[in-house]
Amino acid sequence: MLSKNKIKYIRSLELKKFRKEEKVFLAEGPKLVGDLMGHFACRLLAALPSWFSAHPDLRADEMIEITAEELTRASLLKHPQEVLAVFEIPEYPSDPKLPEQTLCLALDDVQDPGNLGTILRIADWFGIHDIFCSCGTADVYNPKCVQATMGALARVRIHYCQLPEFLHSLNREIPVFGTFLDGENIYSQPLSDRGIIVMGNEGNGISSETSRFINQRILIPNYPAGCETSESLNVAIATAIVCAEFRRRML
Amino acid sequence: MLSKNKIKYIRSLELKKFRKEEKVFLAEGPKLVGDLMGHFACRLLAALPSWFSAHPDLRADEMIEITAEELTRASLLKHPQEVLAVFEIPEYPSDPKLPEQTLCLALDDVQDPGNLGTILRIADWFGIHDIFCSCGTADVYNPKCVQATMGALARVRIHYCQLPEFLHSLNREIPVFGTFLDGENIYSQPLSDRGIIVMGNEGNGISSETSRFINQRILIPNYPAGCETSESLNVAIATAIVCAEFRRRML
Repeated sequence: MLSKNKIKYIRSLELKKFRKEEKVFLAEGPKLVGDLMGHFACRLLAALPSWFSAHPDLRADEMIEITAEELTRASLLKHPQEVLAVFEIPEYPSDPKLPEQTLCLALDDVQDPGNLGTILRIADWFGIHDIFCSCGTADVYNPKCVQATMGALARVRIHYCQLPEFLHSLNREIPVFGTFLDGENIYSQPLSDRGIIVMGNEGNGISSETSRFINQRILIPNYPAGCETSESLNVAIATAIVCAEFRRRML
Repeated sequence: MLSKNKIKYIRSLELKKFRKEEKVFLAEGPKLVGDLMGHFACRLLAALPSWFSAHPDLRADEMIEITAEELTRASLLKHPQEVLAVFEIPEYPSDPKLPEQTLCLALDDVQDPGNLGTILRIADWFGIHDIFCSCGTADVYNPKCVQATMGALARVRIHYCQLPEFLHSLNREIPVFGTFLDGENIYSQPLSDRGIIVMGNEGNGISSETSRFINQRILIPNYPAGCETSESLNVAIATAIVCAEFRRRML
């Protein structure tokens, strides 16, 4: 049985303030909770008895059998799904050696949680395991974003950092890519299986402070070149096309 | 001044039933209204006096100066923006000759208006001017979708049709591409600047009825191949990567 206080605690995790204080986040639904178990320390599992019977091997600090009615009261979803879990927020150091060894992403104030969740799925699909986010980027532990990642959160590490300072700390030889409307056609540029690809804010693109550290300015060309068209692509769409092109070269 | 009846009429366009009866749709904001003017017959323009002063050349069947308060009452947006317009819904015939001449998209029950709007922007970016949509696809004239297209609606024609019947009516030599998790690696397949690319529903992919007409089954490979990853890409993301690859080959 779920106490009033426990319901209040779970629902409070909608707000960043409480997630930060408690260093935890909420995930809901059997698919997502199953994907995240084993990757994050689980503080609390609250589920219908049928879910617990089907998953006798799963463990958490606290496990509570609840009724459908309690689930509805605790859940942040429109359609609550059998189980919800509270996981510890991991702390990953922002190691400037990482982009020397592998291809990473950086997000400069991407603000929409849906875009951020979609970008995690793209990174996961293309084997990119580290994303460096400016402090103005949406919080990936926002429940809307957690749900939108569809489990990619288990395989992609998000490092919040002072992005310009972080880029400044990199070895100068590391390629730092960024998309600009006046960049060079990505299809004719040398790409790399190391370094960082920086994607900018939905409205403003990459900030001038961050763009100082970009040494390879690229562009996704429209078709036919120079034709009247939409002014830009959504940031998640641009991320997908850029990551696909980087990985295509490696095949 | 905007009568109560007119406000009711404008707000009713949130519902497909009324859009269908009246054969009109609603667009809001100076950027979007400006993009659509000249492409669609404008039945009604309702705007602040400042907007009319700045656009003395724009014409509609009915033009009404309104106050900020009237705008707020008529608008479907959280943050109303100076102007709203009611345009006629165009009727485009579903000509089976089109895919013989140009590259088209087809959507098989894409249900999220946000995804549909994003796909229009992608099509516009890549110079694809015709999208054939199954009857189960979201309505592009849904105000949420209209706003999400960001003007691409002016340059991309949406043809609602019985999609399997339409595909069946095509010349057999027309390439009909579709993405499947067991398709062939897109990067090693011959592509084309004519034909149709079919994209499927968010949860179920391409229906079995439609897939009978697909003669080129393609796949966006993940990286590294065969690694544990997200199970699929969002439909708008997949559309973007596929369209980019088709156009990359034509450059």
